[in-house]
Amino acid sequence: MKTLPTPRLEIDGPIVRENIRRMAEYGATHNLSIRPHTKTHKSQRIARMQLAAGAGGLTVAKLGEAEVMAEVSVDILVAYPALDPIRATGIANLAKRITVHVAVDSRYAVDALAAATQTVGSTIGILVDIDVGMGRTGLQTPRQALELAQNVETTKGVRLDGIMCYPGHVWGDPDKQSDQLSRVSDKLAETLALWHSHGLEAGIVSGGSTPTAYQSHLISELTEIRPGTYVFNDMNEVRGGYATVEECAARMVCTVVSNAVPGQVVIDAGNKTLTSDRCLPALESGYGYVVEYPDATITALSEEHGQVDISRCRRSPQLGEQIHVIPNHICPCVNLHDTVWWVEPDREPEQMRVDARGRVV
Amino acid sequence: MKTLPTPRLEIDGPIVRENIRRMAEYGATHNLSIRPHTKTHKSQRIARMQLAAGAGGLTVAKLGEAEVMAEVSVDILVAYPALDPIRATGIANLAKRITVHVAVDSRYAVDALAAATQTVGSTIGILVDIDVGMGRTGLQTPRQALELAQNVETTKGVRLDGIMCYPGHVWGDPDKQSDQLSRVSDKLAETLALWHSHGLEAGIVSGGSTPTAYQSHLISELTEIRPGTYVFNDMNEVRGGYATVEECAARMVCTVVSNAVPGQVVIDAGNKTLTSDRCLPALESGYGYVVEYPDATITALSEEHGQVDISRCRRSPQLGEQIHVIPNHICPCVNLHDTVWWVEPDREPEQMRVDARGRVV
Repeated sequence: MKTLPTPRLEIDGPIVRENIRRMAEYGATHNLSIRPHTKTHKSQRIARMQLAAGAGGLTVAKLGEAEVMAEVSVDILVAYPALDPIRATGIANLAKRITVHVAVDSRYAVDALAAATQTVGSTIGILVDIDVGMGRTGLQTPRQALELAQNVETTKGVRLDGIMCYPGHVWGDPDKQSDQLSRVSDKLAETLALWHSHGLEAGIVSGGSTPTAYQSHLISELTEIRPGTYVFNDMNEVRGGYATVEECAARMVCTVVSNAVPGQVVIDAGNKTLTSDRCLPALESGYGYVVEYPDATITALSEEHGQVDISRCRRSPQLGEQIHVIPNHICPCVNLHDTVWWVEPDREPEQMRVDARGRVV
Repeated sequence: MKTLPTPRLEIDGPIVRENIRRMAEYGATHNLSIRPHTKTHKSQRIARMQLAAGAGGLTVAKLGEAEVMAEVSVDILVAYPALDPIRATGIANLAKRITVHVAVDSRYAVDALAAATQTVGSTIGILVDIDVGMGRTGLQTPRQALELAQNVETTKGVRLDGIMCYPGHVWGDPDKQSDQLSRVSDKLAETLALWHSHGLEAGIVSGGSTPTAYQSHLISELTEIRPGTYVFNDMNEVRGGYATVEECAARMVCTVVSNAVPGQVVIDAGNKTLTSDRCLPALESGYGYVVEYPDATITALSEEHGQVDISRCRRSPQLGEQIHVIPNHICPCVNLHDTVWWVEPDREPEQMRVDARGRVV
């Protein structure tokens, strides 16, 4: 292994397979379709594994990601208000080949997408984005959601497919979480009832995030969930209580390059390798978890240096030693790398392209 | 302009030229060689502009960056303890074609580089890295620096070229800064005197960071400085008092994609576009500066969403509008993009490759 370059992101095949299997089983048990968010891995190979396990389609954030994933799936949700002419035109083109849904929260976006379909001759499915508490995107009231749905119904080139929400604000202890999820459920129910009373139905009600994934059955209105991070997991999930270190499939292998400062070593992974993302449920836990030295803390990241406080470690990492770091937030971390290394037991690691990296639009 | 994709990173040609000119003039005035750190731009084109303005060579952090920059410069400093076999061998190979210096702080690194030269038949220049207060890498005492220099002198394949330091801890008001810089100067002077008394000389004494660049003459021991960020500048420099908004050459052009949440708009730039880097001299200032709406604050970044608080703005950004954001930390931001857009007055923006992006080793 010492002959492989560092920093390198290793992906553990068996852990990925188990993470995918477990989520698929949960979905099957609760009659929830899984539509994995591919932002986490940006990989056709992993998307194929998710589809083979029963995923009903894929989720993306970007047109560029949709174009890459359209090679492996015929049903893609762009969970993003793609309203500029370049994205709208690209999505309209894609909708000639596969089923595409876009989640939007404005008449402006509906009109932009509809206009694009008129040029290329296709139909785009629309999910009305409802804010269920995160305060990022999404219409604020059931009444607004009804009005936008009615607009979609009367606009040529777009098709009303349902509702999307993102409960990204739901974290923390399960008791509090179930309270929050029941408020999400109430808002969805109220919206669906209002739609129904006006003759509109939502074929898709899309929700879910990795931290809330396994409680999605508490929101009975959902027909599908869109977990992304679950495929790899990270320290946000571990320290939030939603995964274990053993369920983390992605580890950055780093080399110790300096030990000149007492009580510290420096690894060859800074914020250009691990990102500057802090661990949201444990801000002071540092910039990732060092597997071989659990008492170490990555206290600071420069661009290419990671400073690791080893003052509480019983033994010291040596110069030239390779150590494994589980990142705080795996999604933007994968996004930094053109390739990752796929690891199977008793086999040499195999380099694998991050297919949709660099697709910024 | 509306037909260009967003998010896109625009580089203002005239501002880049003026930033380069001013730093070159400062170096010439104080007889300091400028060795720009190319980590900021990772671009051969911009490196050529810096060399044309009189830079004596280039600085890189990575072997991969050195390989890219070796096509435009014959004198490169790897300001990084590159001690693993892959980097050492790559550097030894490069040293057959051009002059390469490596900054190291351990006997281990000297031995690794020397061993690599023996296989390929080259000589690598060594700068002894001295910690002048940042506590990241670098030997702690003049005595340790002497011992490592003596090791270099007696090791085949490596050549003692001098000393490197990085005063990255020096920030804040100029009075405090000049005190700190005089302590840096004292440590360098002490080390040089000790070397001299043992018959060793430092041909190169390399220092500098962008925040301290224009005070480098206060450290009379320096022969060169390695500013990187100055070529573009960013909000760290602006809010630290080292640059103005008008001197910021790199701006992310973003589209407003949602205004569904009152008092807020969402732009299509999250942490996969702007990074999660906060503004070090003003942690609560948000994730970048919105040029057209100076009263706006980018309060949160998801991966592809930037939430912008517009409650203090007199007018509201409209859906579909393109706005310009100056990032907090431009170096890791450039690193996210395969291409940037070069902007000259009265010309269409031109797409330009970030040549050394993705060179992780």
